[in-house]
Amino acid sequence: MSQPIRRICVLTGGGDAPGLNPVLRALVKTALELDLEVFGAEDGFQGLIEPGRMIRLDRKSVRGILPKGGSILGCSNKANPFHYQTGPDTYEDVSAQVVHRLRDHDIDILVVVGGDGTMSMGSRFEPLGIPVIGVPKTIDNDLGATDWTFGFDTAVGTATWAIDALHSTAEAHDRVLVLEVMGRYAGWIALHAGIAGGADVILIPEIEYDIERIAKKIRQRSERGANFSIVVVGEGAKPIKGDTATLSAGMPGHLPRLGGAGARVAAELEGRVPHDVRVTVLGHIQRGGSPSNFDRVLGTRFGVKAAQLCRAGQSGTMVALRGTEVVAVSLESAIDEPKLVDPEGELVSVARSVGIELGA
Amino acid sequence: MSQPIRRICVLTGGGDAPGLNPVLRALVKTALELDLEVFGAEDGFQGLIEPGRMIRLDRKSVRGILPKGGSILGCSNKANPFHYQTGPDTYEDVSAQVVHRLRDHDIDILVVVGGDGTMSMGSRFEPLGIPVIGVPKTIDNDLGATDWTFGFDTAVGTATWAIDALHSTAEAHDRVLVLEVMGRYAGWIALHAGIAGGADVILIPEIEYDIERIAKKIRQRSERGANFSIVVVGEGAKPIKGDTATLSAGMPGHLPRLGGAGARVAAELEGRVPHDVRVTVLGHIQRGGSPSNFDRVLGTRFGVKAAQLCRAGQSGTMVALRGTEVVAVSLESAIDEPKLVDPEGELVSVARSVGIELGA
Amino acid sequence: MSQPIRRICVLTGGGDAPGLNPVLRALVKTALELDLEVFGAEDGFQGLIEPGRMIRLDRKSVRGILPKGGSILGCSNKANPFHYQTGPDTYEDVSAQVVHRLRDHDIDILVVVGGDGTMSMGSRFEPLGIPVIGVPKTIDNDLGATDWTFGFDTAVGTATWAIDALHSTAEAHDRVLVLEVMGRYAGWIALHAGIAGGADVILIPEIEYDIERIAKKIRQRSERGANFSIVVVGEGAKPIKGDTATLSAGMPGHLPRLGGAGARVAAELEGRVPHDVRVTVLGHIQRGGSPSNFDRVLGTRFGVKAAQLCRAGQSGTMVALRGTEVVAVSLESAIDEPKLVDPEGELVSVARSVGIELGA
Amino acid sequence: MSQPIRRICVLTGGGDAPGLNPVLRALVKTALELDLEVFGAEDGFQGLIEPGRMIRLDRKSVRGILPKGGSILGCSNKANPFHYQTGPDTYEDVSAQVVHRLRDHDIDILVVVGGDGTMSMGSRFEPLGIPVIGVPKTIDNDLGATDWTFGFDTAVGTATWAIDALHSTAEAHDRVLVLEVMGRYAGWIALHAGIAGGADVILIPEIEYDIERIAKKIRQRSERGANFSIVVVGEGAKPIKGDTATLSAGMPGHLPRLGGAGARVAAELEGRVPHDVRVTVLGHIQRGGSPSNFDRVLGTRFGVKAAQLCRAGQSGTMVALRGTEVVAVSLESAIDEPKLVDPEGELVSVARSVGIELGA
Repeated sequence: MSQPIRRICVLTGGGDAPGLNPVLRALVKTALELDLEVFGAEDGFQGLIEPGRMIRLDRKSVRGILPKGGSILGCSNKANPFHYQTGPDTYEDVSAQVVHRLRDHDIDILVVVGGDGTMSMGSRFEPLGIPVIGVPKTIDNDLGATDWTFGFDTAVGTATWAIDALHSTAEAHDRVLVLEVMGRYAGWIALHAGIAGGADVILIPEIEYDIERIAKKIRQRSERGANFSIVVVGEGAKPIKGDTATLSAGMPGHLPRLGGAGARVAAELEGRVPHDVRVTVLGHIQRGGSPSNFDRVLGTRFGVKAAQLCRAGQSGTMVALRGTEVVAVSLESAIDEPKLVDPEGELVSVARSVGIELGA
Repeated sequence: MSQPIRRICVLTGGGDAPGLNPVLRALVKTALELDLEVFGAEDGFQGLIEPGRMIRLDRKSVRGILPKGGSILGCSNKANPFHYQTGPDTYEDVSAQVVHRLRDHDIDILVVVGGDGTMSMGSRFEPLGIPVIGVPKTIDNDLGATDWTFGFDTAVGTATWAIDALHSTAEAHDRVLVLEVMGRYAGWIALHAGIAGGADVILIPEIEYDIERIAKKIRQRSERGANFSIVVVGEGAKPIKGDTATLSAGMPGHLPRLGGAGARVAAELEGRVPHDVRVTVLGHIQRGGSPSNFDRVLGTRFGVKAAQLCRAGQSGTMVALRGTEVVAVSLESAIDEPKLVDPEGELVSVARSVGIELGA
Repeated sequence: MSQPIRRICVLTGGGDAPGLNPVLRALVKTALELDLEVFGAEDGFQGLIEPGRMIRLDRKSVRGILPKGGSILGCSNKANPFHYQTGPDTYEDVSAQVVHRLRDHDIDILVVVGGDGTMSMGSRFEPLGIPVIGVPKTIDNDLGATDWTFGFDTAVGTATWAIDALHSTAEAHDRVLVLEVMGRYAGWIALHAGIAGGADVILIPEIEYDIERIAKKIRQRSERGANFSIVVVGEGAKPIKGDTATLSAGMPGHLPRLGGAGARVAAELEGRVPHDVRVTVLGHIQRGGSPSNFDRVLGTRFGVKAAQLCRAGQSGTMVALRGTEVVAVSLESAIDEPKLVDPEGELVSVARSVGIELGA
Repeated sequence: MSQPIRRICVLTGGGDAPGLNPVLRALVKTALELDLEVFGAEDGFQGLIEPGRMIRLDRKSVRGILPKGGSILGCSNKANPFHYQTGPDTYEDVSAQVVHRLRDHDIDILVVVGGDGTMSMGSRFEPLGIPVIGVPKTIDNDLGATDWTFGFDTAVGTATWAIDALHSTAEAHDRVLVLEVMGRYAGWIALHAGIAGGADVILIPEIEYDIERIAKKIRQRSERGANFSIVVVGEGAKPIKGDTATLSAGMPGHLPRLGGAGARVAAELEGRVPHDVRVTVLGHIQRGGSPSNFDRVLGTRFGVKAAQLCRAGQSGTMVALRGTEVVAVSLESAIDEPKLVDPEGELVSVARSVGIELGA
């Protein structure tokens, strides 16, 4: 770009993840140091569609936010400027409006912090004349373009803590305890937390499970004197075909948000094992809480790098972690296929090596 | 008692609670110091019914157990020696067998650590010639005879931590987050954790709730700009009559353990409020984890006192906390009516004063 | 008082303690509900001496502060209005000025949250025509008028966590680890944390220690195969007379804030035991962090009660916890002798019973 | 190697680090699955020098150790078989004895878990005919051959938690709080924790500090209204030449273990800033505690890989993390120059970008 960058705008889209505030803090502090002005749009793209929702961010705006979960800008995955709901059944392309608003505020670069959805929307503004820089965010860690995303470590930490807690009570009684964790498409959280917590069974979306294998594992443990088992279930885990039909009657299908996968596994196990089966559904607790030190450092590094890319005018890029380096990759790389757990990969093999049953 | 006490046996009955191991450690260490021998029966009364399940406890047995949840002896609420299941449909009174086994081991006093059920069974052995001393245990804190029971503080801490985590993510989105916590009959955990975590709504078994009041509170908060709400639900919370019928269709009645109360409240709120409603069911996590410092100190004090009562031969008693003192009360006092939350009491009034809606 | 109370002012004096913000939040919310206006003075009495430092407190002022350590009003133990430093060596009585400022703002009651120093200053305003209500605060729990003070449980929790962490590393090596905790005059934190964490030695100000006894305990443990020991030292712990002289040469007397007691005990032990001796000084970490659930509930109850006392015009009183009840006691009761650990009392006896050496 | 590997022996050398137990657990479980027998030597090389200290490890040996700090084998950095202390002033090369003992037990491969010292000793056994495989361990993360080492994330987490706690209390008073953390030669812990915790100043061994620059930063913050500052000091931080002389008088040189660096910085600041300065010395707490989820997963992956390398007979190698992959590198790579913080590198630049003063 020929003319100097003077003013940038940042938004946080999609579901929230611990580490967003460290990103915003580092971005704002670095940008100000580099003589850039910073605006923030509230509630993701919503803040660029509705008037009066772009706020100026200064050092005071980001004071004390480093250890906080959530995002001071608010997140939203509802507003798609290219398909924006304007009535009960009407949708409009309001992207021109967004472009207009950004120009109106003399914004030189738009920084979008978000997952593949947000990044995809962001990249569509480039051809409309709005330079865009991305910061990847997915609590599920399922983005191939970066080794790690912030938020994931915190979520795994929360799930691991839960498994630790379940262990002590499971040992006191003869019980099977099912823990449902996040992960609709990718099983990284279940796999990492299950390994970290010493689960006996881990079920992930990438490996369809055979309930009878799981029951067998639990019974074998009982026979060897370990009268309890802990089963970690990613919310997208599914039984192998054939199982579904027979069990559908007892499924809480009307309450999908209640953690169908954990409840289903529990229902399937009852009768197959002689233990009481109890379920814990962690839900949104995994998105909350103070970001872990890992996520705070990663978020801070991403925020600093994004500001530096702004200053250098290197739009069309996204920050990423590769090994121990923070680098710039193309914005499109975020929109690739999600990085799923490889059923033949190292981490699954590690889980099997320490005796964890994966259901198939 | 005329002859000196030389040998005692301890068991932990009922559901486990953080603090049992501190009790056992303090009891064993103190008893040995007082020249008593100590045995432990495994899995509650089961260990007195089955042969070979009374083990000798020495200093080594209790080394390193202070920070651990659960009970090294195992808990069980299944074996009732006065009504013991011996076949699919047959029950027998095996209490004479228990008396015989205790005599066979020259046990002078039986120490029962447990809730009202365990304490009630224990007290029935006194007329059979077995001196009994009690240590009260209820994670629900619903025992009138003692100001506090161990385990409760840890459980409230876990639930409070969960509310803290939900807060940060709730603030980032527009959401109603429902958290189901323990408490089938008594709402102490919900009430303490809800006050400590700054919940917007707390529902407890002692106060039947009007779902419309709750929805109104949530809508009012939205109108004042607070676009999220956190609803803490004790698992025994019930709607006021009349509500039940209309909602039964959508209830996950076939999965009562999945936290009916939290799921029900969520289902009832959907449609009544414009927010997404999500549910977290903490489940057994609340029983697990390392006991809090409060519970470790209380458990240790109870264990020391119980050993001293053994030494002094003061059977028929139970240890209890009154103000800042650990005292001995009658064993029967544990079997009184449970200590429920007083809907007109101070703590409910405190909750209302800080703006919490209690549903009625 | 004959005329109705309409406006109150609150200040937080002395060192900060986790739970101050819960007190302020509950006080403000309850007072507003009771149709009182609330002001807050910044930095303790300083905010009543300097102009422009009384701020109005509304619901927004206390939003989100429940889980936060510190005090949104700031604390200070420097400004004594009856002996106020006005120059390098000059002190003045500026109490008339404070009275004037409170009258100027139409303050009907002054609520002082603080320890014996703050409470003592507060009570001297009563005869000057300023009604005062007290909320007791001492992280050391050394106030006889109330069973517990907020902040103490959090501080003990932090110290207990530290002992837990030291245990795992101590076991891996042959080491004596000394942990210095708060407690200049009262040993409650050391005693509670030491019992909760399973310390081998606890040294408190109330019991002068014989270093040789401690060394003997450590050597005895080694002989029994426990090749590490953990020594918890309250910062006011002192050796018995006679020891002091011989050791003064090696004392870090020029760095008293560095935790003289812990350093001194470590220096005294070196040479007396065959282990490496290492020291951890927790320092202000104990005052910080999010208040525990116990302290949040207690702080909230105190804040609500204080607001109710204001409404009822019951000045000259202080809130207090007695058993499970929050009551009003006389303001003077806070200024009594501090509640020290009784060397012959139950808690010391409990510590000895579980094998802890107290140094004498 | 021509003949099949059947029996391996593992030891943990050097200072302990959270994650050692996960390594041992994964190594043992995987090795047994691969039909290897596993022995463990107690207290590092000491267990290969003294008789009777090689114990058989089976599944039961490693049960429940995943969440525990320390090492079930014990660590030691005292016994160097090539320079072993046999008398007050006598040292001997006892390596032949170690070789003999390993041969006597039919050990095919020795697995050494340790830092550069342990790895260096291990590699000297290869030419003596003992195949060796390494697992890198350094809590300081200063090993160039691997992107991350286990233990580091836990230590940074503990230090970050401490900074968080100090923040809340620092804000309530006008104070400078100095936190001394581990890191004698490498400043990674101070740098990561300081960034994660939002420190105002970070001092590391790699950058000699100018105390006046630090004092200036603190005074500038005061002038801007931030009346507190948090200074994180790695234990190896040193002032630039010239400063040392003038300050030596007040140095606690006789108590180096008390955290000279933190104490020195505090002493140097007093007088230069108008605040009270307080010091916290974390000490061994940083080595303790339950390993973080990150360290448990990394330790588990390292343990599995080491067992697989044993099975394949690939001695002379060390496991390492590169990006997201666990790979085998040469054993010698651990003995390279330590990986120090680059004063011109990205992480230092990130720290400066968010406004942190590094002292030069």
